[in-house]
Amino acid sequence: MERDDAYYMQIALQEAEKALDEGEIPVGAVVVCHDKIVAKAHNQTERLNDATAHAEMLALTAAMHAIGAKYLTECTLYVTLEPCQMCSGAMYWAKLKKVVYGASDPLRGYAHLGCPLHPKTQVVRGVLAERSENLVKTFFQKIRR
Amino acid sequence: MERDDAYYMQIALQEAEKALDEGEIPVGAVVVCHDKIVAKAHNQTERLNDATAHAEMLALTAAMHAIGAKYLTECTLYVTLEPCQMCSGAMYWAKLKKVVYGASDPLRGYAHLGCPLHPKTQVVRGVLAERSENLVKTFFQKIRR
Repeated sequence: MERDDAYYMQIALQEAEKALDEGEIPVGAVVVCHDKIVAKAHNQTERLNDATAHAEMLALTAAMHAIGAKYLTECTLYVTLEPCQMCSGAMYWAKLKKVVYGASDPLRGYAHLGCPLHPKTQVVRGVLAERSENLVKTFFQKIRR
Repeated sequence: MERDDAYYMQIALQEAEKALDEGEIPVGAVVVCHDKIVAKAHNQTERLNDATAHAEMLALTAAMHAIGAKYLTECTLYVTLEPCQMCSGAMYWAKLKKVVYGASDPLRGYAHLGCPLHPKTQVVRGVLAERSENLVKTFFQKIRR
């Protein structure tokens, strides 16, 4: 398979599935630098007992450690759900090159809240969005049972 | 000294001074739960090589670990500078009871950017603001030299 945005989003979706299996809200993230995956993470707020342990925060921090730099100006973040205010703020400080996300989040998504990104960060939205939406739906059906 | 907002802000300012000594942007934070300090932190973006290692993020996560809960509904965050988009987003997820900050940040402060807080989070601003402003001024004078 060609390594396009859908390729990396599939890996982010696999991370989201891990979160679902662990009883976490199913969100997954991957950071790619020059066609190489430098970090993968999924939401761990329950496991870590930490409301800030979103997939994006864990992936961005892991990416900074992996490449040994605090700016991710050559990196793309793939995330299955639109980032929140906190995570978009982290993307700002990281000077992220590009973000690709799947489903929109009309409640807490940064774009819906009107929170800014770094002016140099490119945005691609809606990649494999339906698969991300289905995971979130499955999660909420599970917890209602 | 009575343990009012100024008392805890002084301790946050001591944390900011540690950051200044270490060549970090001087911001300090303290989390207080029922009149007990449960976490203290200062900005460590340089030391940790992590653009997300703001004083507030470190203090909030440390507080969640200290009290063993991912919500800080009984906690107050004292921070020397107005929190940014990322840190105010973290405060939202933490369901923080109250935030007390010192100096305003017209560039990256959440209020200046129009980013929301949790509807239950009370806000007190301007506590010992001048001391915080002086630390930030000292930092930028140092790096210009």
